[in-house]
Amino acid sequence: MRIGVVAPARTVSQESAARMSAFMALTYPQHDIVYHPQCFVTENHFAGPDAVRAAAFLEFANDPGFDAIWFARGGYGSNRILERVMPHLNSAAKAKTYMGFSDMGFMLGALYARRIGFPVHASMASGMGRNDKGQDTGWALSWLIDKDIKGLEPSLLNGKPAVAFNLSILVAMIGTPWLPDLTDHVLMIEEVGEPTYRVDRMLFTMAHATQLKGLAGVRLGAISDVVRNDVDFGESDEFMIRRWCGEMGVPYLGRCEIGHVALNRVVPFGVSVQG
Amino acid sequence: MRIGVVAPARTVSQESAARMSAFMALTYPQHDIVYHPQCFVTENHFAGPDAVRAAAFLEFANDPGFDAIWFARGGYGSNRILERVMPHLNSAAKAKTYMGFSDMGFMLGALYARRIGFPVHASMASGMGRNDKGQDTGWALSWLIDKDIKGLEPSLLNGKPAVAFNLSILVAMIGTPWLPDLTDHVLMIEEVGEPTYRVDRMLFTMAHATQLKGLAGVRLGAISDVVRNDVDFGESDEFMIRRWCGEMGVPYLGRCEIGHVALNRVVPFGVSVQG
Repeated sequence: MRIGVVAPARTVSQESAARMSAFMALTYPQHDIVYHPQCFVTENHFAGPDAVRAAAFLEFANDPGFDAIWFARGGYGSNRILERVMPHLNSAAKAKTYMGFSDMGFMLGALYARRIGFPVHASMASGMGRNDKGQDTGWALSWLIDKDIKGLEPSLLNGKPAVAFNLSILVAMIGTPWLPDLTDHVLMIEEVGEPTYRVDRMLFTMAHATQLKGLAGVRLGAISDVVRNDVDFGESDEFMIRRWCGEMGVPYLGRCEIGHVALNRVVPFGVSVQG
Repeated sequence: MRIGVVAPARTVSQESAARMSAFMALTYPQHDIVYHPQCFVTENHFAGPDAVRAAAFLEFANDPGFDAIWFARGGYGSNRILERVMPHLNSAAKAKTYMGFSDMGFMLGALYARRIGFPVHASMASGMGRNDKGQDTGWALSWLIDKDIKGLEPSLLNGKPAVAFNLSILVAMIGTPWLPDLTDHVLMIEEVGEPTYRVDRMLFTMAHATQLKGLAGVRLGAISDVVRNDVDFGESDEFMIRRWCGEMGVPYLGRCEIGHVALNRVVPFGVSVQG
């Protein structure tokens, strides 16, 4: 398998790429990982201007020589290239797996909405730290290369088709044509670095979204690195999710193992797995 | 005129209420301002539990003895009472003016969507500081009581009907039935206390919102107290708004004088004024 890495949002370092390439050479010596040079470009907040990030994605996604696109890193910015790339994906792009999470939810969601390829919520190519055993990186690669189910989010086994999103990214797509039709899907959400009142406000938007009325259920991943507010919000994550799922009229199905945490499990969009 | 004050989000102090009552007594001695006791309740983040805030709003809004509801303060939380209050407003509620901004955009938007009363974006009852001349408070009251146009956002004169929202609140309503039909309206937006990348992400949602395709135009108010990011975003407010209005296919009409700033002009929803 030949895996192409592009960065639709923020840049990555050469060191990070070298670390991942070494990990691949050790664990999957018969497979290749290729970083597009765009990954290392920096312009202000982004890994290059919108046009450069869009061109790099289109180049690798439309190249039949690659089997998968592994997104380099999140941050912010993949939404800015959706209009430039989504109408221009060819048949080679439709056969690929696309893997990432966080800001990459824009890409995964838009691809899934158009039924292009196989979007997978999983750790990213820059996800492995300096003294990292690479557990979730291993999960992502073993699903990608061997369809090994060991890293899948456990509720997927014998469960309904699911998707996973960062809550901020999901909410930013609500009301737009980029949000896929999620009827009969389980929606898994996670969040990082927000004060609780904002999580509550985003759950309100999710709960009242016309487009999400047909969900089979909601699962809550990690709400990590919560930003302290001036007064305590007084409601737990579990209380909030139950309240809003109630107002939404969609079953709350419990927790799930995704998020900006060490345990970020793999969620292939729309796949129902027999364990 | 008898003005009722309620607090659908955060609490206000007795001192703030006393200051506003004194201002009213001096400037509009023939008119009354009545604070609902709920304004002074505190429970964690909110001015009382959802049920208490909802009941206070319904009590005053449905009381024919009040001519207007002036919201006490923003913060966060009026979205949490929408489902409890909006279906229960009576004919007295339909004759009233509702005035506030920021988080109160949820209330103004939901009222406007249901064509209940006369929503007005303007400073709030707690808006006057300790050594404040009360200029924008005066604008709000002079529109409310005398229909004096001196405090109106200048572009309203001989202009198209308009609405005004905090961008975070607008985006939280996009994709839900609480967002009013804004076809042929000018949309004015303002933001406070956000890093630039988030403003950009919210403008993306606005630009791609299916519900907003029929806007007559967009105007940009103050983007104040911007939170510094780890890297400079590299795009000005003016650049961002032009970019996203372009992608939206809606004319950018220039700046407007609203926001979390001293100069927060009055924008009566849907009213076109002959100056």
